[in-house]
Amino acid sequence: MNELEKLFDRIAQRVNINLRELEFDVTPYIKGLVSFEKMVKFYAFYGVTPHHPLNFVFRHSNLAGSYFLGRCRTGNSILYKSDIRGDELKKQGAMVHYQGFDIPISKDEAIEIEDSFLIKTLVHNYSHDPETLELFFITNTISTHYANIHGSPTDGSFLGPFATVDLTTMNDCVIGAFSYIQAGEVNHLKIDPGTVWVRVPGVFNFLYRYPREALSPYISFEAGKAPRGALMDFVENRKKDFQLLFDVVNLPSSIKVPQNTSLDRFAVVKPKIHIDENVLVAQRAYLENSWLGKGANAQENCYIINSRLAGNDITAHGAKIIEADLDTTVFVGFNSFLHGRPESRITIGKECIIMPHTIMDSDEPLNLPPGHLAWGLIQNPADLEKNSIRMTDLSKVENKLSRGDLYFEGNGATFVRAFQERIHHILEANGAFFDGQKNRGHAQKNQNISFNTIQPYPEGDLQGMYPTILIQP
Amino acid sequence: MNELEKLFDRIAQRVNINLRELEFDVTPYIKGLVSFEKMVKFYAFYGVTPHHPLNFVFRHSNLAGSYFLGRCRTGNSILYKSDIRGDELKKQGAMVHYQGFDIPISKDEAIEIEDSFLIKTLVHNYSHDPETLELFFITNTISTHYANIHGSPTDGSFLGPFATVDLTTMNDCVIGAFSYIQAGEVNHLKIDPGTVWVRVPGVFNFLYRYPREALSPYISFEAGKAPRGALMDFVENRKKDFQLLFDVVNLPSSIKVPQNTSLDRFAVVKPKIHIDENVLVAQRAYLENSWLGKGANAQENCYIINSRLAGNDITAHGAKIIEADLDTTVFVGFNSFLHGRPESRITIGKECIIMPHTIMDSDEPLNLPPGHLAWGLIQNPADLEKNSIRMTDLSKVENKLSRGDLYFEGNGATFVRAFQERIHHILEANGAFFDGQKNRGHAQKNQNISFNTIQPYPEGDLQGMYPTILIQP
Repeated sequence: MNELEKLFDRIAQRVNINLRELEFDVTPYIKGLVSFEKMVKFYAFYGVTPHHPLNFVFRHSNLAGSYFLGRCRTGNSILYKSDIRGDELKKQGAMVHYQGFDIPISKDEAIEIEDSFLIKTLVHNYSHDPETLELFFITNTISTHYANIHGSPTDGSFLGPFATVDLTTMNDCVIGAFSYIQAGEVNHLKIDPGTVWVRVPGVFNFLYRYPREALSPYISFEAGKAPRGALMDFVENRKKDFQLLFDVVNLPSSIKVPQNTSLDRFAVVKPKIHIDENVLVAQRAYLENSWLGKGANAQENCYIINSRLAGNDITAHGAKIIEADLDTTVFVGFNSFLHGRPESRITIGKECIIMPHTIMDSDEPLNLPPGHLAWGLIQNPADLEKNSIRMTDLSKVENKLSRGDLYFEGNGATFVRAFQERIHHILEANGAFFDGQKNRGHAQKNQNISFNTIQPYPEGDLQGMYPTILIQP
Repeated sequence: MNELEKLFDRIAQRVNINLRELEFDVTPYIKGLVSFEKMVKFYAFYGVTPHHPLNFVFRHSNLAGSYFLGRCRTGNSILYKSDIRGDELKKQGAMVHYQGFDIPISKDEAIEIEDSFLIKTLVHNYSHDPETLELFFITNTISTHYANIHGSPTDGSFLGPFATVDLTTMNDCVIGAFSYIQAGEVNHLKIDPGTVWVRVPGVFNFLYRYPREALSPYISFEAGKAPRGALMDFVENRKKDFQLLFDVVNLPSSIKVPQNTSLDRFAVVKPKIHIDENVLVAQRAYLENSWLGKGANAQENCYIINSRLAGNDITAHGAKIIEADLDTTVFVGFNSFLHGRPESRITIGKECIIMPHTIMDSDEPLNLPPGHLAWGLIQNPADLEKNSIRMTDLSKVENKLSRGDLYFEGNGATFVRAFQERIHHILEANGAFFDGQKNRGHAQKNQNISFNTIQPYPEGDLQGMYPTILIQP
């Protein structure tokens, strides 16, 4: 295991060099966070399908339990139970429109992870940086449990547990636990835990901060300790259900699904589940006693329990929906925690947007009317009133809006429109609008994927290191 | 599946072109022999271990159910449930002594399989051809169920079921079912079924032919039909026991074995088994109610049932030992079928050699005294008398010996010594003589191998074709 330990130390050193200006030392946070024994134990796997470009290059890495799809390269990295999806990357010949520019894509884009340590992190989508459209890089970076690096080239950074960077290029930053950053480009920033920040420079700026004490029962992360809190407990308590999925090579599906629906063989499906047409259930999704209407999706690391999604609902990466009723076209953002109870369910009206990293957790029923947008910490109906707004009202904001811990400035209509367009695009990409011929998406393309397992050297100096692996079409 | 079907036709055409002089058409023999659906169904796998050189290159091939270890390359080939072991290949810098020559090995040797279709065939060992020491090639070749291509570079040839070529270079030949050829170099030959031929040109020549009618209840292979007979029934009846091994990713061992013994996770072990020190049990071996003494080995596709192997016994690839008692240092050659019965067991004395492709199948007990060599079809004690010889007597033969269907000419002592040296080498390579420090062999090196699975495109035009795969250290 000598080589693996050296690799770990080298990654920590590289990240520390990048973060020296912020005087941030990653070592106490990550030392012992995942034992080397665990890194040796789990096999990794990659998908083979004619519907996605295929190009894997794994060099001098440990990939324990990680999942790869599409075009991914790793070097000198440790990816522990991470999920690297390169199936939405841009293809050679495509054109990207960015402000005044029409930028041709000169070669197939790839995700490249170098000198990094990712723990249970989801890496997905494609580079939204107009400066690096052919390469979605993650270098000199450490991210911790259930972080999302979504369309965000990242260098020299550290992400706390349940942190998300989305459509953002990040250089030498520290992102606190449960923070969501969608900000175009950020450099040398240290973001406090529980920050929800969405901005387009010069157009709008949405900034919410969780009160520190209120957030810590849900998630806290201190040097020398594993992440703690209700969010960690929630996922840890359901870990065992995933074990069986990984113990067998080819698992027959436990339920029948419609023809144009995709249920990943690495998703947990507990009784009793209804899954309609054009539904996408991704790997590492967890479904229990719920109803997924036509075009709904359940993305990686999401949990849907005792709930009903009427149709075209988006359950983004890491979102948790428990004891809730969602009308059609509801968006539940990254890592949101909709924690209803049998005696106090959560009801979400048609076309609502639940901002990423929202927590709804109340002893009384919560009811969000149609066409609303909600955010932040909501522990009772009064919080919901304070932390939500009718979108037609938000669209009227031209200058600024301040409400509780939220500060918004800029053009509300642009903000709402951008969000709605993105929701439409997500549904489209996932195949919600497939009519039997047109608008094929992931729900149709991901139905039949072969998964190949890969394992490291089982002993010796290279124990835990994977051999060099190249997979091409 | 279009691409796979095209590949199949192209391989058949290539082999036919090579065999045009013999006027042999492979098509009626192989058409439908394995359905394309089956080729899509099974995953293949390769082993990762620090003890063997690692270098896999798979291009434009179907590898259904095949096993790879060491240095193997495939191109434009279909390997159906085959076993390709490149862990004994020569390494750069080694020296091969051949007659008057000392030949340096200029680069690491590899097994390269091109334009070939192998069914349940074992490819193993290294090239014994002094003309091609760095490349063990199998090109333009079709081999059928349970054939062995052992140390034998092969071009443009066809092997019937249970045929073996051993330490032989073969060009444009047809080898009949259950024939064993160890002949240095052969060209443009059509070998009848049931031929056992061991020769070193100018030194000795051992030639035995099974009577055709007597062999056919054991194995027959006609155009348009699957192989039939007792040998096929025997393996087919035990196929299901292997299924579980392939359905789970990591199987805990069902029994404890000594520290210096290797029990492959893809071997079937049924109660009640004793396995001693320095024993090697290879993948696809089948053990049931038997005793394997110190240094015994059970090679690929072998079956050991209700039997006792006292120690340092060799059960070569495909050998079957049922209701038999073997004293120490007994060699049972390739594909031999020692079919004892509870009321008429087979007893083999110390240091006996059972020639490859021997059938012992009698209603009366058979007892081979120590130091004997036996061959061919033995169905009663009289056959045993006729088809065996004390090795000290065989060593006295200087010119020729004719006995039943056996014809031997040349130097008996050289023949016996060559065999005994080879047996010693096999035991050594397999780790039978390991003393805790010296003489490490497969039994010690193969204890802890990671197996990675690979699968083909699950649908579309490329259905059944594997992506291009490169695995390096």
